[in-house]
Amino acid sequence: MKHLLSTKGLGRAEAIGLLDIAEDMADVANREVKKLPTLRGKTVVNLFFEDSTRTRISFEAAAKRLSADVINFSAKGSSVSKGESLKDTAQTLAAMGADGVVIRHPASGAPEVLAASGWIDAGIINAGDGTHEHPTQALLDAFTIRRRLHGTASRGTGLDGVRVTIVGDVLHSRVARSNLWLLTTLGAEVTFVAPPTLLPMDMSGWPAAVGFDLDAAIAAKPDVIMMLRIQAERMNAAFFPNSREYSRRWGLDDVRFARLAPASIVMHPGPMNRGLEISSEAADSAASTVLEQVANGVSVRMAALYLLMSGDREDS
Amino acid sequence: MKHLLSTKGLGRAEAIGLLDIAEDMADVANREVKKLPTLRGKTVVNLFFEDSTRTRISFEAAAKRLSADVINFSAKGSSVSKGESLKDTAQTLAAMGADGVVIRHPASGAPEVLAASGWIDAGIINAGDGTHEHPTQALLDAFTIRRRLHGTASRGTGLDGVRVTIVGDVLHSRVARSNLWLLTTLGAEVTFVAPPTLLPMDMSGWPAAVGFDLDAAIAAKPDVIMMLRIQAERMNAAFFPNSREYSRRWGLDDVRFARLAPASIVMHPGPMNRGLEISSEAADSAASTVLEQVANGVSVRMAALYLLMSGDREDS
Amino acid sequence: MKHLLSTKGLGRAEAIGLLDIAEDMADVANREVKKLPTLRGKTVVNLFFEDSTRTRISFEAAAKRLSADVINFSAKGSSVSKGESLKDTAQTLAAMGADGVVIRHPASGAPEVLAASGWIDAGIINAGDGTHEHPTQALLDAFTIRRRLHGTASRGTGLDGVRVTIVGDVLHSRVARSNLWLLTTLGAEVTFVAPPTLLPMDMSGWPAAVGFDLDAAIAAKPDVIMMLRIQAERMNAAFFPNSREYSRRWGLDDVRFARLAPASIVMHPGPMNRGLEISSEAADSAASTVLEQVANGVSVRMAALYLLMSGDREDS
Repeated sequence: MKHLLSTKGLGRAEAIGLLDIAEDMADVANREVKKLPTLRGKTVVNLFFEDSTRTRISFEAAAKRLSADVINFSAKGSSVSKGESLKDTAQTLAAMGADGVVIRHPASGAPEVLAASGWIDAGIINAGDGTHEHPTQALLDAFTIRRRLHGTASRGTGLDGVRVTIVGDVLHSRVARSNLWLLTTLGAEVTFVAPPTLLPMDMSGWPAAVGFDLDAAIAAKPDVIMMLRIQAERMNAAFFPNSREYSRRWGLDDVRFARLAPASIVMHPGPMNRGLEISSEAADSAASTVLEQVANGVSVRMAALYLLMSGDREDS
Repeated sequence: MKHLLSTKGLGRAEAIGLLDIAEDMADVANREVKKLPTLRGKTVVNLFFEDSTRTRISFEAAAKRLSADVINFSAKGSSVSKGESLKDTAQTLAAMGADGVVIRHPASGAPEVLAASGWIDAGIINAGDGTHEHPTQALLDAFTIRRRLHGTASRGTGLDGVRVTIVGDVLHSRVARSNLWLLTTLGAEVTFVAPPTLLPMDMSGWPAAVGFDLDAAIAAKPDVIMMLRIQAERMNAAFFPNSREYSRRWGLDDVRFARLAPASIVMHPGPMNRGLEISSEAADSAASTVLEQVANGVSVRMAALYLLMSGDREDS
Repeated sequence: MKHLLSTKGLGRAEAIGLLDIAEDMADVANREVKKLPTLRGKTVVNLFFEDSTRTRISFEAAAKRLSADVINFSAKGSSVSKGESLKDTAQTLAAMGADGVVIRHPASGAPEVLAASGWIDAGIINAGDGTHEHPTQALLDAFTIRRRLHGTASRGTGLDGVRVTIVGDVLHSRVARSNLWLLTTLGAEVTFVAPPTLLPMDMSGWPAAVGFDLDAAIAAKPDVIMMLRIQAERMNAAFFPNSREYSRRWGLDDVRFARLAPASIVMHPGPMNRGLEISSEAADSAASTVLEQVANGVSVRMAALYLLMSGDREDS
């Protein structure tokens, strides 16, 4: 693997291969010394054009566990904020010897521009670009589902026939998009449930069922229900009446949670708005995978950094 | 030791044990390679809900000298500032594999909530919570006094009979509180000197003498005089008339400094307001321990991280 | 070498010695594991009183490649911004065990004050002070010129007879000053070209020719043309009419670029304002050394950190 830019472009074998390596990485977390020497002498730059402490420290922990050096580059207050082009920033990082770049950017497509440009030879990982993709989030979600379903015997398997319902602000969510592509590639069936104002106008080509009624979706007994985070800043943007109304119609409250099938799992990418899109009872239940998702995030990011930065990196 | 939350709950033997380990750590600073492999593969998270560069870099230096990986998590601009609960933050750090959490928080008691919660199994160190406690500051102060009194032969000893006068804004000072509990546990006698408006209304249960007259306190020839930092933001809060008046009545100026006993020591937690609570002559004198306090701070924090994060960590 | 504060005080042999060590460091960048154990157990503090992400991460990469621990101390939001003196900050860093301090400061002369003070024993590197000096920038520029001229056979050589034209805001540029002293020490001939309003009133003692006409300067076929960055904040300061006028008269546009001698090189310290002081064609041409300057910056800073912090550090 040369870059990790999207899940849309990820083949099934490649995706399963990455998840299998993440299983190996998860084992490292149980060792007394949780460090591998794999990336010693390599430098990972966290190039964040948007604040995201959770994602940044997950990548930072993953890189350090592989013995890489980490340099945090926040675009705020830097020459980038003074109008330096992405090209000049990228070439500068390349010249400084960056072996991997984890990029978070408000513009959809920025990581692909970076990877296609030839400005930098380093492996590029998309850590969230606009409303486009957030591939490591989808990979950690798939990893989490696979582990819940198959346990440690999950190596080599996909998610064939698993029914996943994703609920909330699909319109603005790169998490929803990345999950759609990856989960369907792995054989799962995806249903989106959202208010009409929070769905894209044109969903042609999206291999997803769509519904507007969360109660009906729950009555269909999905294997997985994934609640998306509501961004507070959308609240005043006329996408829905108010937070109480949203919670009443599209939140996973205690009543809806009780109607889920006993074996189904509840996911959330975090950070959660408890009481808005998800109740505390649901979030803290045995069905919830919220914290497993965080832990698996480090393993999946270790796998991605390993594939992109170790000597075994492929040329295409 | 499982957590280090306060000095109020610290027993005498436990406190002396920590100071003795800090003596060992201080020896490391004199080696050619100032690094111990003790915490290799462990991760320390500096979780700072308030800015405090001095305290953060002291813990960062201590952790790195023990070969731990350090991740700085400033709550500003993070999901925490968007309203994520302390519970969700803590569980996230736990899931990422944090072995130790150094927490600075504006709310008194937040570190104890964290430690008691079960949200995270990591060792918790309180790096200052509201007006409550700042235990590593008190430990480094006690360490500094002990070294000045007994030199390198101080291992195993307390501070029995040492008379310590603490001057300034006791009302808002977690440093004053942490010192009161630790110093009396170690056998010292503590006197607070402050304007009446800068003392708590209810000091019942505080094992301290109280005075309002700094000249009288100095005439009593204390072994140690500790000047507290005046926060500029209190100045306009009607706690005292103005900075000139404060300095005239409760500052350690050159005249008062000259009246101290020759063997007495002058302490300040830093950063100092020179010319306000302390004169430059006092701050830079041979009696001053201000810089020893900083150096000892790294040793004491190494000892605390070692006790909480090495394999020998106790369960209670 | 004890400190690196300016190029004005740097002797020819000393400068060539540093450039030769930087050649060795550049070789490290080609190794599989780009790390030397040289500074293991040493701590470098990046003490930045002004934001400068590029310079900070260049020093950070250099220090980590030498296995030093790096602590970033941004003065924003710290006690420094609350009025702590440089003296107290420096003594605090010394007490914490800093072995090297990389300082960026808005006040000209601050690094020299620090080095002369005795407040801290660590090696001090000036990473830019006001309009005074930025010595590692000049050293990386000299290194870049030397490599272009002599290739890998450049060890031990100076820049005798090389003709360098520096164009732009000389008045405010520490890069121009540091280059002037170093390049002339190494035997080069320096010409400044600038609008009269962007030249110092008094240039007596400056070993530089001065011109106001960029076309005439280019007609003289310099070996090197170095374009200075225009600070956007100067634009409204009545130093020149507007950016279009500036670009027309003092920018390296495509027409001027085409008139340069085929073997001449184009330099810029970055970040560039493309289309203002330099055209994209010039910036991205084979004559441009912009990215080599960045890469060489890491090597030169490794050499400086090595000279100041390794066991071989001289006492004067």
